[in-house]
Amino acid sequence: MTASPSVAAGRFSDQDRAHMRAALTLAARGLGRVWPNPSVGCVLVREGRVVGRGVTGAGGRPHGETEALRQAGEQARGATAYVSLEPCNHHGRTPPCTEALMAAGVARVVVACEDPDPRVSGGGLARLRAAGLEVASGLLEAEAQELNAGFFLRIREGRPLVTLKLATSLDGRIATRTGESRWITGPVARAWGHGLRASHDAILVGIGTALADDPELTCRLPGMADRSPVRIVLDSRLRLPLTSRLVRTADRTPVWLITRPDAAEPARMAAFADCGVDLIPVEPGPGGEIPLPQALRTLAARGITRVLAEGGARLAASLLRDGLADRLEWFRAGLLLGGDALPAAVGFGADRLADAPRYERIAVRPAGEDLLESYRRRG
Amino acid sequence: MTASPSVAAGRFSDQDRAHMRAALTLAARGLGRVWPNPSVGCVLVREGRVVGRGVTGAGGRPHGETEALRQAGEQARGATAYVSLEPCNHHGRTPPCTEALMAAGVARVVVACEDPDPRVSGGGLARLRAAGLEVASGLLEAEAQELNAGFFLRIREGRPLVTLKLATSLDGRIATRTGESRWITGPVARAWGHGLRASHDAILVGIGTALADDPELTCRLPGMADRSPVRIVLDSRLRLPLTSRLVRTADRTPVWLITRPDAAEPARMAAFADCGVDLIPVEPGPGGEIPLPQALRTLAARGITRVLAEGGARLAASLLRDGLADRLEWFRAGLLLGGDALPAAVGFGADRLADAPRYERIAVRPAGEDLLESYRRRG
Ligand SMILES: NC(=O)c1ccc[n+]([C@@H]2O[C@H](COP(=O)([O-])OP(=O)(O)OC[C@H]3O[C@@H](n4cnc5c(N)ncnc54)[C@H](OP(=O)(O)O)[C@@H]3O)[C@@H](O)[C@H]2O)c1
Ligand SMILES: NC(=O)c1ccc[n+]([C@@H]2O[C@H](COP(=O)([O-])OP(=O)(O)OC[C@H]3O[C@@H](n4cnc5c(N)ncnc54)[C@H](OP(=O)(O)O)[C@@H]3O)[C@@H](O)[C@H]2O)c1
Repeated sequence: MTASPSVAAGRFSDQDRAHMRAALTLAARGLGRVWPNPSVGCVLVREGRVVGRGVTGAGGRPHGETEALRQAGEQARGATAYVSLEPCNHHGRTPPCTEALMAAGVARVVVACEDPDPRVSGGGLARLRAAGLEVASGLLEAEAQELNAGFFLRIREGRPLVTLKLATSLDGRIATRTGESRWITGPVARAWGHGLRASHDAILVGIGTALADDPELTCRLPGMADRSPVRIVLDSRLRLPLTSRLVRTADRTPVWLITRPDAAEPARMAAFADCGVDLIPVEPGPGGEIPLPQALRTLAARGITRVLAEGGARLAASLLRDGLADRLEWFRAGLLLGGDALPAAVGFGADRLADAPRYERIAVRPAGEDLLESYRRRG
Repeated sequence: MTASPSVAAGRFSDQDRAHMRAALTLAARGLGRVWPNPSVGCVLVREGRVVGRGVTGAGGRPHGETEALRQAGEQARGATAYVSLEPCNHHGRTPPCTEALMAAGVARVVVACEDPDPRVSGGGLARLRAAGLEVASGLLEAEAQELNAGFFLRIREGRPLVTLKLATSLDGRIATRTGESRWITGPVARAWGHGLRASHDAILVGIGTALADDPELTCRLPGMADRSPVRIVLDSRLRLPLTSRLVRTADRTPVWLITRPDAAEPARMAAFADCGVDLIPVEPGPGGEIPLPQALRTLAARGITRVLAEGGARLAASLLRDGLADRLEWFRAGLLLGGDALPAAVGFGADRLADAPRYERIAVRPAGEDLLESYRRRG
């Protein structure tokens, strides 16, 4: 166990804090492209000077420590390593980072939080201590926990973190009565929405949205096309047309359909496979709907740690009913659409105020003329 | 006409600006209790020292200038008067403020904005100039316009300013499917809501809300009970029970019912009058509903300048459809209720995004755990 934050705080200098913050900033850059691994930032400092920086590479390799040590070379000797997550200590595809830090002659290792992976937890720090390195942990721990919340959830609960993204009117509507939803929010909010895509491993939508909007669900920010996440549709009966934009671009950016094992004729299922679409079978629940807990478990088993759910109203309702919407990113435009317009979430059984899923406000920021409200699920 | 803001800006010093801001702050205190008059703040400054302060009194008398001059006495001679609105120049119940300023020997008068009242507009300033006083206007004009927006609307368009207050979930719901609405927002937001009541001349609700909640609609902030506004219910068929809290307290705080001329038997109408309730007859529209433009005109004719509309969903929809919700004060709690819960506003015909009423964000503030978003109608 790490020391309590108040104890920990006294053990670190302002310098320590600044370097760890830099390591966390590096780590944040990796989110959305390092799965199934956590994103780890590492800053090597010798005599007050930064001699190496690294962040986990695409697909999870190399580790941040490896890259920082490579940059530092001989300068690593006697240096302090600031690492946003406890260094790994198990032999996987590459030798463990603990050994690399020791071999390079690093003198002190400061860690933001311990690894929840049972193969690592505490072991990495113990190994370093045993080798005579000075080791401290718990610096900016809450920030580091939040940063890799998706990875931690996958390890601890076998499911990814789910961020529900919404773009609504002031009165919480995602489309007019006639189905018009483009665009409720302005260009700044939409660009920000693409940025959210880049920092998630996968986007999830219901087939209703895929049919209504024929969306591409890629990250279309200039220079960030390679950051498009896996695109996933909940489609129990394989209603997605083979001519949809999603299917037509499946060879470039992965498309996974979560569907019933008996969703369609074998020929139709084969046609999807031919187009490069991955079919993920999940047994339907009694109502015929695909149970979200099972669906998310299959995604975690495939390594997905961060899912951005982009609607529509039925998917949002299922996530809320099942207590699976961990974060909300709510873009709100300054207009009203009225009670006959499409709701952010259809009814999900909150008949009493006591039943309502509750959220804690994290941040509220202007996004052009719109507002971006960020929330975290309570309890 | 006043000079354009950029020209005006150059004419005023930082001192001028600070004193005018103080005058505006004084004026803000009068909102909600000075109707049918505007709320005017006045600060008298001699040789850099404040020698008098005043704000319009309850019911509109005395004027802010009168009180400031009374405080200053002989010290007013040679002073500068900062007034948030052009001083009146017509003989009403009291002599005009222009004469009082001249008689007291004030040397310079700085005004934030001119009076829209045709009996005054420009005349007060001309009179002062003619008497040899130095006169400047247009300092912090936008703020002054906003402050008395209700009075200006009443003079220019014959209707009060309408602020629509809402307390909703993140997805824009004012009650659960089963009608539970107490309390969606927390104690800080609710106290703030009472503060809003104090700064308005009247509260308006639909009879649906009056029947569902049996509300008192008073300002129950400690020490501010005397700031309760007139309580108005849109009740075309006089469904309000004589035993309701509103009727039972009508002798202490006014209750007005906007109703059809033929709403009920004469005996029932007389019973309301006996309880001290004022019945305001308005001819119904073709659908039987009371047309809001007419209803608001009758309120303006009675002197009301600022109305706080507190719901429910039908009243909000009517205001939005008719383009009469000038401001929104939206308290938003961090929970979701789903698409079967009661909407902030029922449908009002916004079938296309282009039809939606649009609002400009003025401020977003935390109100305890909730958020208060303030908006102004565009166009
Ligand atoms: N403004 C915005 O932010 C925004 C974002 C997205 C969408 N939208 C709008 O939302 C509308 C579509 O919403 P929608 O509610 O009709 O559809 P949806 O939520 O996108 O999709 C719902 C469908 O997904 C399938 N599904 C399978 N398992 C499910 C589960 N566990 N939970 C929920 N759905 C499951 C079901 O179809 P099967 O039974 O066939 O599998 C279900 O009918 C469109 O008008 C779109 O424009 C707006
Ligand atoms: N959370 C919040 O902020 C909040 C605030 C207020 C209310 N509420 C909830 O809202 C619910 C009541 O809402 P509601 O929509 O049923 O009723 P409402 O809007 O309060 O009242 C509507 C009624 O007012 C009368 N009316 C007359 N002229 C009208 C006009 N021009 N426009 C609209 N209404 C007119 C009509 O009845 P007649 O035809 O009989 O005249 C109409 O049915 C309650 O559940 C209450 O708890 C919540």
